[in-house]
This record gives sequence, C-alpha cells and structure tokens, in this order.
Amino acid sequence: MIKFTIITLFKEAVEPYLKSSMMEKAVQKGLAEFSFVNLRDFGLGPHKSVDDTPYGGGDGMVFRCEPVFAAVESIKAKDPDAKVILPTPVGEIWNQEMAREFTKNSHYIIICPHYEGYDERILQLVDYKVSLGKYVLTGGELPALIIVDSVVRLIPGVLGGETSAEIESFSEGDNLEYPQYTRPEDFRGMKVPEVLLSGNHGEIAKWREAHSKKVGTI
Amino acid sequence: MIKFTIITLFKEAVEPYLKSSMMEKAVQKGLAEFSFVNLRDFGLGPHKSVDDTPYGGGDGMVFRCEPVFAAVESIKAKDPDAKVILPTPVGEIWNQEMAREFTKNSHYIIICPHYEGYDERILQLVDYKVSLGKYVLTGGELPALIIVDSVVRLIPGVLGGETSAEIESFSEGDNLEYPQYTRPEDFRGMKVPEVLLSGNHGEIAKWREAHSKKVGTI
Repeated sequence: MIKFTIITLFKEAVEPYLKSSMMEKAVQKGLAEFSFVNLRDFGLGPHKSVDDTPYGGGDGMVFRCEPVFAAVESIKAKDPDAKVILPTPVGEIWNQEMAREFTKNSHYIIICPHYEGYDERILQLVDYKVSLGKYVLTGGELPALIIVDSVVRLIPGVLGGETSAEIESFSEGDNLEYPQYTRPEDFRGMKVPEVLLSGNHGEIAKWREAHSKKVGTI
Repeated sequence: MIKFTIITLFKEAVEPYLKSSMMEKAVQKGLAEFSFVNLRDFGLGPHKSVDDTPYGGGDGMVFRCEPVFAAVESIKAKDPDAKVILPTPVGEIWNQEMAREFTKNSHYIIICPHYEGYDERILQLVDYKVSLGKYVLTGGELPALIIVDSVVRLIPGVLGGETSAEIESFSEGDNLEYPQYTRPEDFRGMKVPEVLLSGNHGEIAKWREAHSKKVGTI
C-alpha cells in the first residue's frame, strides 16, 4: 500500500482524477490511499496568505516558508518516514525507472507549488525534486497527478489480474511499443497486417519486434 | 482564442482541472475554450463498446477505429481545420518550443487513449503524436491536460497583465530558473542572501545569473 498526501491550494482540481478510473480501483483494492492538505489552512494573517513578492524584485508571487514547513510538519508528526516530493522545473526529469523505484516506499508527501516560484529554503524539507519535462506549467498539480498515476499503476495488483512477477516483466516491456490492431480486419480499405491474423506466434513476435519503437524517442 | 476539444471516456476526471485556477480565468477572458466529446457516444453495439482484443494476441484492450474516426469526424464536420493530437508513448517528447508553436493554431482535438493501446490505423487521423516523457500512464487524460495547460498559459493575456511582447520574453526566460526568496529574512536561522536585500539591481542580476539552472536538466 502506498499513500500519497498532496499539499495543494487546488484540491478541487486534483481530487476528481484520483476518484476515477484506475486510481479509484487501486484505492478500492486497498493498494493506494490519497489524502489532501490545504496549504491555505497554514496561511498567515487574516487572509491566510501563503505567498509574497520576491526579494530583489521580479514578477510573480513566491511561496513562503512558514505555511509549507507547517503543512509538511503536520503530516510528518504522524508519519516521520514520509518522503517529500517537490515538482520543480529544476528537478530530475521523471522517468519509468524512477516510477518503479518509488513503488518501494510507503508514504509520499507532494508539495504543489505555483510555478511562479517558491522560497529556496523550502528545499530543506524535500527528499526528491522532480521535473516532468522541458516545459512550464501553471502549477505543481498536474506533475503531482503524473507522479501518482505512473507509480500507482506499477503497484502489484492494480492492473487487472497480474501477479507481481508479471507486472515486473510488463514494466520492462513499457520501454517498447509495437503497432496494435483490432477488429475490423478491413476498415475503409486499411487492412490489418496478414501476419497478425496468421496464428503463427513466432512470426507475430518477429513482426512486432521489427516494428517496435522505443517509448519517448519518437 | 484557442479551442481544445477533448475526446475522452473520463470527462469527470479531466474537466474539474480546466474549471479551476488559470485555465478557468483564460476561459472567462475569452482566450480559451474547452469542450468534451464522450467517445462512448460513438461506441458500437448495445454496450457502446470502444475497444477490443488485439489481433495476434497480447494483454489489454485496443481502441477500435470506428468510434475514434466517428468522434473526430463529428468535430471536423463543424471545423475542418481543427488539428488532431494523440498522446502516445511513441510521440515526439513535448517541450516548451512545441507549446509556443501550438499557440499559433486555433482549434485542437485531443484523443485520450488508454495506454493499453489503440488501433494503428487511428494514426491516419492524427496531425501530432505527442509523448510527455519516458514514463507510462494509465491513459491520455493527464497528457491532454499538460498540453492544454502549457499552451494556454502562453496565450497573450492569460497570465496577469502582460502584453504579448512581454509574454514572449517571459517564455524565453522559461528555460532558466534562479533561486527565489521572500519574507521572512530569517527563517529558523536560514537567511536570505544579502545581495537580494541590497537594492543593487546590477549585483542582484549578476547573482541570479550565476545561480540559474536550466529547466529540466537538474
């Protein structure tokens, strides 16, 4: 069972994804658990402020230390072993090997910052800085969902019916994709390659290998 | 104004994100428009089936041609110039330059497949195959949201107050990040670098340049 606690200002944007499809099934099977902490609850002053203008000038608002430290510490008080993930453009680029590695821990806290910025001292709290790729988003919420989705689907038992070992080999295969076809055999004159209809498993395997592409490399 | 039409089986997982935060503001300003087409509406038979087992054997269910072609064609009947995006592990890896390029078109259709697979003939419909990175997800819904978010925030006027030209230079700067600090000056003994408090803009710029990191490269 892996637990994710997501610190966000936008629970309403994130939670519905985790309540649908495979993520919800993982929860129902007792293999994953998702909870939320509203950063606003740890905000400062009458407006429960969580950010402020940057020292030295510049656009945008920067997440302050106090609310983020208080939010993380409120979670760690109950589970000191929880690991903290910060989605950030300067993090390590997320990949399948990291997703697999992350299945080994039992509780992750994900801080969702505005991409406008966060106070650098927040990094003192962080075990893993993760970047989704070489693009910029409006906040850490989508990266949080990507991390959760790609880890949870690797938990043995989450995808239908497989044993742990089968999952493992499926994970290895994740790095290669071959063209798939299903019914009908002929769609508007576009036909399924004959070898796939042949029933010759050796030939099918050979065809698939010859037509495989590495994931994420075009 | 850029319009995104998302073909999905899981509208309830995707829509709340687009109704929150910056995405909703873009809609309110008339700069973006989001709509959904339920692939199930184009399903086959009494169960409105959209997938089937793969020819040649193998795990998982593969998206059939007919429902996807019918869904895309129903949208293109009204807007023949709409471009079709398919999130797929074998697509080109999404990056900031692509996001900027995508702001030039006015209507995109995004097909959200299961990652278990889609019939290869569906590619005949597709203008852009996009991969989010070297990791595997349970479906195309999160990639669709990432594409939408990273494009919409670049539409001039979406982020507060900037003119088009300012947005452009901000986009260039997206590739670099420097450490940010905000109040308090001293948090539990961790202090803001003195140069940022100096008011010396030349020195501040120099410090920031020296401490900049390229986005997505650690």
